[in-house]
Amino acid sequence: MTRSSVNPALTALGYAPEDRVVIFHADDLGMTEATVSAYSELEGRSALTSVSVMLPCAWAPAAAQVVRARPGADVGVHLTLTSEWDACRWAPLSGPEPDLVDAEGYFHRRNEEARQAAPAAVARELRAQLERALAWGLDVTHLDTHMGAAAWPPFLPDLVALAAEYGVPPLYLRHGAAGWEALGFGPEEAQQAAQLGQALEARGFPLVDHLRMLPLDVGGDHAALTLELARELPPGITHFILHPASDTPELRAVARDWPARVANFEAFRSPELRGELEALGIRLSGYRPLRDLFRRRLRERAGSGQG
Amino acid sequence: MTRSSVNPALTALGYAPEDRVVIFHADDLGMTEATVSAYSELEGRSALTSVSVMLPCAWAPAAAQVVRARPGADVGVHLTLTSEWDACRWAPLSGPEPDLVDAEGYFHRRNEEARQAAPAAVARELRAQLERALAWGLDVTHLDTHMGAAAWPPFLPDLVALAAEYGVPPLYLRHGAAGWEALGFGPEEAQQAAQLGQALEARGFPLVDHLRMLPLDVGGDHAALTLELARELPPGITHFILHPASDTPELRAVARDWPARVANFEAFRSPELRGELEALGIRLSGYRPLRDLFRRRLRERAGSGQG
Repeated sequence: MTRSSVNPALTALGYAPEDRVVIFHADDLGMTEATVSAYSELEGRSALTSVSVMLPCAWAPAAAQVVRARPGADVGVHLTLTSEWDACRWAPLSGPEPDLVDAEGYFHRRNEEARQAAPAAVARELRAQLERALAWGLDVTHLDTHMGAAAWPPFLPDLVALAAEYGVPPLYLRHGAAGWEALGFGPEEAQQAAQLGQALEARGFPLVDHLRMLPLDVGGDHAALTLELARELPPGITHFILHPASDTPELRAVARDWPARVANFEAFRSPELRGELEALGIRLSGYRPLRDLFRRRLRERAGSGQG
Repeated sequence: MTRSSVNPALTALGYAPEDRVVIFHADDLGMTEATVSAYSELEGRSALTSVSVMLPCAWAPAAAQVVRARPGADVGVHLTLTSEWDACRWAPLSGPEPDLVDAEGYFHRRNEEARQAAPAAVARELRAQLERALAWGLDVTHLDTHMGAAAWPPFLPDLVALAAEYGVPPLYLRHGAAGWEALGFGPEEAQQAAQLGQALEARGFPLVDHLRMLPLDVGGDHAALTLELARELPPGITHFILHPASDTPELRAVARDWPARVANFEAFRSPELRGELEALGIRLSGYRPLRDLFRRRLRERAGSGQG
């Protein structure tokens, strides 16, 4: 599903073409207190190498506080256009824009509704989220999208422009059309997504080769599962998603999938996991080297007048 | 501190002048999951008779859900202009109005800053909070104010008009000027507040005679304290504030005063407390009879052309 050529970002960072580089990435930081306490425990002492923050959520201030206390830690903005639960919800930072909210005043619950919004309203909101993270003193390393809602063809031109403006790479897959179709895109959208990837790479955007995720539908031993997924990884850069959270009454009250989130957390709490991954030959990385590479490429192009 | 005449709302509801009627009121419902689980446990099986919801907080949807599941339960709107904690914060429903928010984009932390806002901006926000509660299907019985921020002379004309428009009585004390000064108002503001109270009463607004609150600065046995405060109550209607919350990691992470909130909750969980209060001659009530009285008065005045 990935294009057969070697990812130029892989070699630019000094890796060999056969190296398997993995970004172990915690989504949803700030959604609940349970995400903040879990991240605080994992960051710097586990296989976790990156995280992204949901700025519209109530616990974003606590999330920012723990990230700022770890200078050099990776931190992305988890661009958010949906508020999917019932008990605890969140709304746009840019105000009660009718396109972005449901009848209750929060972001829509599902991508289907969120993706009906006018691209200009989405662009304003995504900019507000990134700019708030920067205003709060976060050294933002990347952008990714909550439930993939913002990773939608009509929204991508503005998202890409925002990423280039601030020199913050978006999570973007180095997939051919077949790879995008396998992710649920229709044939035409898959073709567009693949073409956009090629255009981005030509402009110096670092892309990732593979996407993996620990399941959200089952609990159990996710450390064994992580090792199994890692063992089978092909060469290239993998963005590996987990949703770690502490087992608390708050988490259980908001998220039906709490057993999986707790299992994600328990797997990465294991003191052995990092060594076991490294023993498999996995090279752990965050987005910071990719972000710095992106900024060098943007400067080179600006210098050469390619804009 | 209270005016010496008998509260007309007390007698209109069929009480004797010497009766001691108490509304045991939980503030801050929806601020955290811990407030929702605590309220769910207390409502209908304790001495708690009323509650008010913070619409701008993340757990307002869960709060609304548990209240709607209890038809006939008292529920007020806890009008909010401040977001006082660090870890978990909330913002205006009416959008990022510069007057209402601080540099981080949330409501101001303190009343001092919140009260600098233009009254029109405050009025829009308070209306948005009440109208959201109504839109969500809450049968709103009263209005009160978080940290008292909105109970400020420049904001009161709009708040009073909003209350009259929807027939929802605001918590307002039947104090003379000295009583308001004892609450921290300057002499001129105290005079205005007392005059407004008289004017409201003349228009049919039901006022309360006394205000009591369980402490937020100490934990310990708050059941004994509740009985002690109840024993010493003078005749009339008392609005008695508590801040019940379950002891959870979320509560501890957000609120420095969590031991007191948990002590409030534990006191009202006691199966004996309600009987002990009744044995002291305390008559428990909520805002619903006052709200219905208010609506009758408004209709009578409308019918008599007094507007």
